Amino acid sequence: MSTIEKVLTRIDAGLDEASGRLIDWLKIPSISTDSRYADDMRRAAAWLVEDLKTLGFEAEPRETGGHPVVYARSPSRPGKKRVLFYGHYDVQPVDPLSAWKNPPFEAKIATLPDGRQAFLGRGSSDDKGQTRTFLEALRAFKAETGEFPVDVTVLVEGAEEDGSKFLPEYVEAHKDELAADVALVCDTGRWNEDTPCITTSLRGLLYTEIVVHCANRDLHSGHYGGSAQNPIHVLARIIADLHDDNGAVTIPHFYDGVPETPPDILEQWKRIGMTPESYLGPIGLKYPSGEKDRMLIELMQSRPCCDANGIIGGYTGEGTKTVIAAEARAKVSMRLVGDQDPEKIAANFEAFIRERIPADCSYELIVHKGSRAVALPYDMPELALAREALKEEWTREPVVIGIGGSIGIIGSFRYVLGLNVLLVGWALEDDCIHSPNEKYDVRSFHKGMRSWARILERLGG
Amino acid sequence: MSTIEKVLTRIDAGLDEASGRLIDWLKIPSISTDSRYADDMRRAAAWLVEDLKTLGFEAEPRETGGHPVVYARSPSRPGKKRVLFYGHYDVQPVDPLSAWKNPPFEAKIATLPDGRQAFLGRGSSDDKGQTRTFLEALRAFKAETGEFPVDVTVLVEGAEEDGSKFLPEYVEAHKDELAADVALVCDTGRWNEDTPCITTSLRGLLYTEIVVHCANRDLHSGHYGGSAQNPIHVLARIIADLHDDNGAVTIPHFYDGVPETPPDILEQWKRIGMTPESYLGPIGLKYPSGEKDRMLIELMQSRPCCDANGIIGGYTGEGTKTVIAAEARAKVSMRLVGDQDPEKIAANFEAFIRERIPADCSYELIVHKGSRAVALPYDMPELALAREALKEEWTREPVVIGIGGSIGIIGSFRYVLGLNVLLVGWALEDDCIHSPNEKYDVRSFHKGMRSWARILERLGG
Repeated sequence: MSTIEKVLTRIDAGLDEASGRLIDWLKIPSISTDSRYADDMRRAAAWLVEDLKTLGFEAEPRETGGHPVVYARSPSRPGKKRVLFYGHYDVQPVDPLSAWKNPPFEAKIATLPDGRQAFLGRGSSDDKGQTRTFLEALRAFKAETGEFPVDVTVLVEGAEEDGSKFLPEYVEAHKDELAADVALVCDTGRWNEDTPCITTSLRGLLYTEIVVHCANRDLHSGHYGGSAQNPIHVLARIIADLHDDNGAVTIPHFYDGVPETPPDILEQWKRIGMTPESYLGPIGLKYPSGEKDRMLIELMQSRPCCDANGIIGGYTGEGTKTVIAAEARAKVSMRLVGDQDPEKIAANFEAFIRERIPADCSYELIVHKGSRAVALPYDMPELALAREALKEEWTREPVVIGIGGSIGIIGSFRYVLGLNVLLVGWALEDDCIHSPNEKYDVRSFHKGMRSWARILERLGG
Repeated sequence: MSTIEKVLTRIDAGLDEASGRLIDWLKIPSISTDSRYADDMRRAAAWLVEDLKTLGFEAEPRETGGHPVVYARSPSRPGKKRVLFYGHYDVQPVDPLSAWKNPPFEAKIATLPDGRQAFLGRGSSDDKGQTRTFLEALRAFKAETGEFPVDVTVLVEGAEEDGSKFLPEYVEAHKDELAADVALVCDTGRWNEDTPCITTSLRGLLYTEIVVHCANRDLHSGHYGGSAQNPIHVLARIIADLHDDNGAVTIPHFYDGVPETPPDILEQWKRIGMTPESYLGPIGLKYPSGEKDRMLIELMQSRPCCDANGIIGGYTGEGTKTVIAAEARAKVSMRLVGDQDPEKIAANFEAFIRERIPADCSYELIVHKGSRAVALPYDMPELALAREALKEEWTREPVVIGIGGSIGIIGSFRYVLGLNVLLVGWALEDDCIHSPNEKYDVRSFHKGMRSWARILERLGG
């Protein structure tokens, strides 16, 4: 039996124990965007530090200005490649709590209606479950061979769901100790149940919040209706104006820096055969909302877009209240591609808003986060190795695509650390990440560990 | 000393005791629109029943299907007119609680920055304070003369701030026992600090809630941004489309039944000299938002309007969440005048919404409340009596106007009971009704009691 076969056998035999470790970690409610969970964030980081020590790492939490990152580094050995592994231990908020069938932080394995076994709980897929597939693959190597096949640096952050606020600064300040041959990231998904997927581009993200102020206090709508400005109307006008009839974004110069996809790639995408039925059907929709002259797969991965992620103003409780609000607010974010510049877009967006504010009202535009899109080279050697490894595990050629989401820190790995980045992950479209009832298939977890073992073996040479 | 002079002297001497009674009542948080306060609603009704008994009434709470009304009736005496007095013991919700300088239900008298004495607390003006000015005037008559100058029926309801849902039904079912010569209502305001005001028309109210449903669950905006419909965008389009560039409402046939104000009334209104500076300045605004070709006073009292009173959808917490919501909702209400028909407008509004719902999305339109506008005859005899009484108390001719707000039940008094309705009240524009920091000037309370005593004396003949 070859080394890799023995390692895979160990992974199979250790599945229950690995599952138990994941469930323990999932029970810690590490919501990074809500300050009420600050203590739980520290507990989740401490849990991981202890776990990394069981793998022989010297590990520690490191301060960042926000939630700590967990950092660990195996000693350097002559002639060995070093990989920088990235994941995140923070999770999305859980509202609306009432929509969860199993409480978000009482993780367990359950059988889904179609017979699949899955971990239930917030973070099970994004990104605690995924992060553990890599770490458990390392554990199997260590147990079998006494060492890792490559030198490993681990960086698991606690603010990915909050835009990785302090991480670019941290990476910049720790360039030397984060130096590696390649970065490995496990925060993406499979193409479908049986097809693995490697991601080579990610959309950037500009995330803003608009606050519109009108009167200096809430008003009685009977007395002031028809005479006083209503901030909900002002905000609705701004949001309604963001798209034209063709579904394109109307902020001036928004499309500056958006590249046209080369014809041969477009041809490949056409062959993939993604349809509105297959992509939107499962979420109860039928028609793509974006630019009408683009294929759905373009809208998802190579076109920018703009969405209101939240809005609130006035009376939102039970029954009625005849009020005109003093202020209203909305969170509006944009997914960026190519060379779109978040700073320029934020400035143009502010001008767009200013034009729509009545003369006696005022506004604030808060920029929570801005990151550029990232595109990785199709000819990087790690891509070829990972394709082979995944083909062997899944007996199916992996799909190589761009994705619509953003992982803020990839830009820093690429441009500050100068690394190629290999993005592979095992999540499925129905994992409900960022939604109630998040889950992660036990098969994703199990084959994810096996896939990482095969990739690590190949990277080790 | 004449009887009325003795009664007024008693009112002056009893101000402290009357103030104490109001403060006791204000401490009961009778929020009608929030079911968590159902027990407090019953306590507030019971408090009033006991108070009415101290005036010699047989009083009791009466069930309505919602919160109880408080009903009391003095025995009929030959040759005496009967008045039906209406007020309400329920109050508006108090959010945002953090904006209150003094907690809303810890009522007290305090000195305002400009030296005025005022009751602080939710309901101090709208409508517990106002209701008590009438009842305390009765108390002074009873104490001085042993009887009331007119026969009195009291109907104080508990759902005015929730659209008086069950009261029209109740009035219809109790027509006989509510029969009277005139209805007296204390839920309106003074024209300014020194000028009393009598209201002869009220706008109607259609209050609706729109719910837009898109995907069958909340979505990750990275994966679905640009391809899935966003209910906040759909709702923003509906709200933005409600008004044209001239500030007019665009719902088809919305203006059917809106009368033109006669030129002589318009002339009177011009002479009043209401300016945007005087009306909008105190709330921090400068320019009327409504129809550009109308005077501000028209926009307030004789023109219909439409306002979004609340909106909510997606993530509204701290920080960021990259989500596309499954649904979004808004409360949208319209103030109606003349013969505008709330049922027809609701139907046209629904068609207006339907046209703006994408083919793969759905909506609900909930009609919380619909009431027509009311206009009372300028030549009713009670109006002349009240003008004299108020002129005597305030040494200033009262202003006779229409008001922009709605008091749902006035239509039932007028059309079901066939009564003339005399609407007088003592609130000031800066009372912050429906807002945080509601207050009621002690002077409003004191002169309000005196004014009612003078009106009651004249009605008694």
